[in-house]
Amino acid sequence: MNKPDPLNNVRVVLSHTTHPGNIGAAARAMKTMGLRHLYLINPRHFPDAQATAMAAGADDVLEHAVVCGSVDEALQGVVFTVAMTARLRDISIAVKSPREAMPQVLQEAQAGPVALLFGTEMSGLTNEEMGRAQLGVNIPAHPDFSSLNIAAAVQVIAYELAVAAQDFIPAAQEIEPATHERVEGLYAHLEKTLFEIGFFTTQNPARLMQRLRRLYSRTRLEDEEINILRGMLTVTTEYNARLRQRYMEEHKDV
Amino acid sequence: MNKPDPLNNVRVVLSHTTHPGNIGAAARAMKTMGLRHLYLINPRHFPDAQATAMAAGADDVLEHAVVCGSVDEALQGVVFTVAMTARLRDISIAVKSPREAMPQVLQEAQAGPVALLFGTEMSGLTNEEMGRAQLGVNIPAHPDFSSLNIAAAVQVIAYELAVAAQDFIPAAQEIEPATHERVEGLYAHLEKTLFEIGFFTTQNPARLMQRLRRLYSRTRLEDEEINILRGMLTVTTEYNARLRQRYMEEHKDV
Repeated sequence: MNKPDPLNNVRVVLSHTTHPGNIGAAARAMKTMGLRHLYLINPRHFPDAQATAMAAGADDVLEHAVVCGSVDEALQGVVFTVAMTARLRDISIAVKSPREAMPQVLQEAQAGPVALLFGTEMSGLTNEEMGRAQLGVNIPAHPDFSSLNIAAAVQVIAYELAVAAQDFIPAAQEIEPATHERVEGLYAHLEKTLFEIGFFTTQNPARLMQRLRRLYSRTRLEDEEINILRGMLTVTTEYNARLRQRYMEEHKDV
Repeated sequence: MNKPDPLNNVRVVLSHTTHPGNIGAAARAMKTMGLRHLYLINPRHFPDAQATAMAAGADDVLEHAVVCGSVDEALQGVVFTVAMTARLRDISIAVKSPREAMPQVLQEAQAGPVALLFGTEMSGLTNEEMGRAQLGVNIPAHPDFSSLNIAAAVQVIAYELAVAAQDFIPAAQEIEPATHERVEGLYAHLEKTLFEIGFFTTQNPARLMQRLRRLYSRTRLEDEEINILRGMLTVTTEYNARLRQRYMEEHKDV
């Protein structure tokens, strides 16, 4: 059996890219460093002649690009999501430099697909998109002019990843992380349950869910743990339902 | 006195760039990493609206760009030249990775201006341009598709340089390197002298000069050493001239 290439488990996800030339340049940047899997969330123009021109031979990366309608669709099956961010404040997750982060990306890629998530040209990632990530990565740049072109950012990250891959030795796998959609399923279940039991009447739901996402993204949930947590939620609402039913039976006149 | 910024002594030299968009994108890449000095050898189109558009705010780098007619003009005053090359064979100088090379670039920049020399989009640097460099740098890339866009290459190199600058501690300066034009002056003097004394009748001049460039680029000549070497060359031809004169005097009838 050949040694599997960890880069094969890494996907680059570009969200709402405005200029098709940037998509092509990003594809070229990826291919120079051995990355193949490109996902595009609602690109403004794709496919596009300018994308193909800027790909300059990385046409296969563009041809196999997966166009998605939402960030959750792009993260299907993913076990670890890294958000690229120019912001260092107002970030609820840990933020590392590319050099610190890429060995971890390779390690996570041993367990399943890893996503490198890049925001739109003008404003980067939305809070909703940031909330899907377990780790933030910030390319150190000059404070007076810190805005890298998106394809240039892809080039730097892909380069750091390829350099890290040269001497990467996988550690023993400690956990079996759950996929993105399983974790999102838990959050949805949790939110619904907290709503049902009346917890949100005293809390800001959006803010609280952000805090809970932060907590669980730190701990890296396993599949079996999600089963346990969702089981607890189910019992909670069932218990609640039983209470309500008993109350209804005892107060038939209400 | 403020600590001098070593990046202020680094110039990016782009040779015969075909697409003005690449010049703009390179300027942006430079500025994000704190590099300011751009030199352009015979750009096909410059200034150009596409360059300005791709600079996306790094207009000041473009405005102050120095347009030159030759590689020697672009290297005026430079004490250390690094050639960016995708080739690893047929290179007469040492080749390092960006990570290995950038601390050295910062160290050389303590003594004087350092040039990072990038070739044209299609074919890279010419042999003549390569011959001006003391060090080659090769960005490791995938063997099946190793051609980085030129602005992407500038971004990777500038990024590596900025990261290296974060923990750079200058070593004590061992030598006072001569500038590019002083070294070129020596080569011209040497070539002329070897021609005069008849050495080239048994050797291929171009090939021999390449070998001599290689030798002296390894040793890093100081200004005073160039004076000594040129003094030796002057005496050699004077001696030759005296010999010829004496011969003429003794054989007046010839």
